[in-house]
Amino acid sequence: MERITATYYIETPLDLEKAAQVLAGEQSSGTFIAVPGETQELKARFAARVESIVKLDASTEPSIPSIKLKPGTYQRATIKVSWSIENFGYNLPVLISTLQGNLYELTQFTGLKLMDIDFPTSYSSAYKGTRFGIEGCRKLTNVYGRPLIGTIIKPSIGMSPEQTAALVKTLAEAGIDFIKDDELLGSAANSPFEKRVDAIMEVINRQADITGKKVMYAFNISDELDQMQRHYEKVVSAGGTCAMISLNSVGLAGVKKICDNGALAIHGHRNGWGMLNRHPLLGIEFPAYQKLWRLAGVDQIHVNGIQNKFWESDDSVVTSIEACLTPLLGGYSVLPVVSSGQWGGQAPETYRRTKTVDLLYMAGGGIMAHPDGPAGGVLALQQAWEGAVAGLSIEQIAAKYPEFNNSVRLFGNK
Amino acid sequence: MERITATYYIETPLDLEKAAQVLAGEQSSGTFIAVPGETQELKARFAARVESIVKLDASTEPSIPSIKLKPGTYQRATIKVSWSIENFGYNLPVLISTLQGNLYELTQFTGLKLMDIDFPTSYSSAYKGTRFGIEGCRKLTNVYGRPLIGTIIKPSIGMSPEQTAALVKTLAEAGIDFIKDDELLGSAANSPFEKRVDAIMEVINRQADITGKKVMYAFNISDELDQMQRHYEKVVSAGGTCAMISLNSVGLAGVKKICDNGALAIHGHRNGWGMLNRHPLLGIEFPAYQKLWRLAGVDQIHVNGIQNKFWESDDSVVTSIEACLTPLLGGYSVLPVVSSGQWGGQAPETYRRTKTVDLLYMAGGGIMAHPDGPAGGVLALQQAWEGAVAGLSIEQIAAKYPEFNNSVRLFGNK
Repeated sequence: MERITATYYIETPLDLEKAAQVLAGEQSSGTFIAVPGETQELKARFAARVESIVKLDASTEPSIPSIKLKPGTYQRATIKVSWSIENFGYNLPVLISTLQGNLYELTQFTGLKLMDIDFPTSYSSAYKGTRFGIEGCRKLTNVYGRPLIGTIIKPSIGMSPEQTAALVKTLAEAGIDFIKDDELLGSAANSPFEKRVDAIMEVINRQADITGKKVMYAFNISDELDQMQRHYEKVVSAGGTCAMISLNSVGLAGVKKICDNGALAIHGHRNGWGMLNRHPLLGIEFPAYQKLWRLAGVDQIHVNGIQNKFWESDDSVVTSIEACLTPLLGGYSVLPVVSSGQWGGQAPETYRRTKTVDLLYMAGGGIMAHPDGPAGGVLALQQAWEGAVAGLSIEQIAAKYPEFNNSVRLFGNK
Repeated sequence: MERITATYYIETPLDLEKAAQVLAGEQSSGTFIAVPGETQELKARFAARVESIVKLDASTEPSIPSIKLKPGTYQRATIKVSWSIENFGYNLPVLISTLQGNLYELTQFTGLKLMDIDFPTSYSSAYKGTRFGIEGCRKLTNVYGRPLIGTIIKPSIGMSPEQTAALVKTLAEAGIDFIKDDELLGSAANSPFEKRVDAIMEVINRQADITGKKVMYAFNISDELDQMQRHYEKVVSAGGTCAMISLNSVGLAGVKKICDNGALAIHGHRNGWGMLNRHPLLGIEFPAYQKLWRLAGVDQIHVNGIQNKFWESDDSVVTSIEACLTPLLGGYSVLPVVSSGQWGGQAPETYRRTKTVDLLYMAGGGIMAHPDGPAGGVLALQQAWEGAVAGLSIEQIAAKYPEFNNSVRLFGNK
């Protein structure tokens, strides 16, 4: 019978073997007193199994403050635990409750992070997953051989549909590939969703008629389910190609249900992610997280960016990009969305570390505030990536391209 | 215009006033360079507003390890920030992205926890919320004047529908009010959901015909959306009164969509909660969390229990129970589910601290393993609560009631 294997980074005041058994027991057949019916045969079939334990360093203080524990030895380790798929079948929410669930509550762990999940091959027939992924998003935007260049409508909230559409027109004429709503904007008082879609898609469709290039606009449809579905259909009927969902705010069941429509590329925004990940020994790491959303059908997912304005290290960002580009069961391609303080200057380092152009590279103020105007801003980003792929440094790219050089003058000290 | 106010517990290396402004700016109109269209009028209408700052203690080390920061002064505070409801209207996912979202990513905070949310009165017409709540669950089980006594089917996973039904029969005959699936059990290979419902409801319905009392069974319907809906309908058609959902695993949009059916009491399981809450300065506190689920329509929600087997302190459990019992916009009554290592011995302390019997009091092994059999186990729990309400100590209750006395002999040293 196929098994699912989860990798955890743990910290425990117990003996490692004992701690691992507690984890496996709690998440398959645990209770604090034995009850009738708990046969050996049953245990063997449904019990979680500790597959490996790799001992790491130790600390004298628990990583997560724990009122019920005293100073002592808190041993860290990487452990792998597996479950038969007979336990949950093809049910991602119950899978999550099994692999995570009450584990974070156990005093036996002073730190626990789900690092990765290995799915068995039968999951590839159970989950349709992403309908567009990297190739599909390239096809929809007609961008090949370089990252898709994108931007976010700012200010995040407060602009009318007409103001937004005017900004979209400017950006479309500047040659942008992708634009998105901010995650704060669903349907605001002065920017009702339908009106925004109509105003923006009129601009995008007209521009597409002229140039043959349709800008991909990720409308934020995050909402309760029926409303999300209505907004999804609105985007489809207006000729849009993409919808954005705040993954953590909407949740897995809602996101999958919307993805299953299959008509739009889904831009997965991971806001709230820091809550699940910021502590080194609590939560879930991106390699595990992104697999769940790929199976659910998300085509694009945020990975932060090199030299970002947030807390996350470059190493972590690189790991996330690599996770997205690692094949999953032969499919479920997902486009990493690089954002947060990006202006083009991070392109050389991003390329040096990831060796990929399969990215959606998002720049915020860097485009609109560019000295040569938005067209100069978009061009500068393309130049940054051309130079990055050619192995040039920021200085070398600036020497070669005047628009990128102007970006450096504006943002180089950020 | 109505505003929503969020209360945060923060830690920051910045001046408090500055940090609070960063929070407000990031979650309403922030970008790293000013762009055209960001008018003063627009800012005034949609900008988040810092309402209050209460300075607390400070630390020389950040609470969350932060590679981008050096030792210094990390000041803690409670701050309140408000948003006009014009920003998001009645859209809980976008509300969550606004009140939490990228905040956890900011280097300006080395700790951030959402403590509470104050909703304006118009939310009471926008959200139907809980259909049953405390009174509805009492009516469905015909239990008044004491906590509902419940238990969880253990082993969590591996029993056949017939074995489970046999256990339910024993428990029903023992006088239990409530039984639930474990969160690990959705539809396992040897316990397909439909078959389990049929087998269990046959027992429960027959018992109800005899005694007039219908045991409330929370079938775990957690799954992807269409399947959840099918399973919900199956429970309804079989005469069930309750369905359980793992809130964090399914997510808000999915949970609300299911609650909106309105035919079953929804048992909200918070597994995964430790990830969102275990660190004192990261995530969300229960008073904020439970409000979101009440608006979504969850009728029962887990609060852990006094002297629980998990990491959580009794103070935190008491705060959670109080949060559930605090009226929300004149409605949205929710029944706190007390569980984790409960055997009746915690009843006096639970009552002493909360002064309520509006609880669903869950005991696991404590019922089935009772020396006088399951009926003795259920009776002992009722006795524990009778004694607790009368102000008796464990010893006094044990002296008065033989069945509870036998519980003490079995569990008293746990």
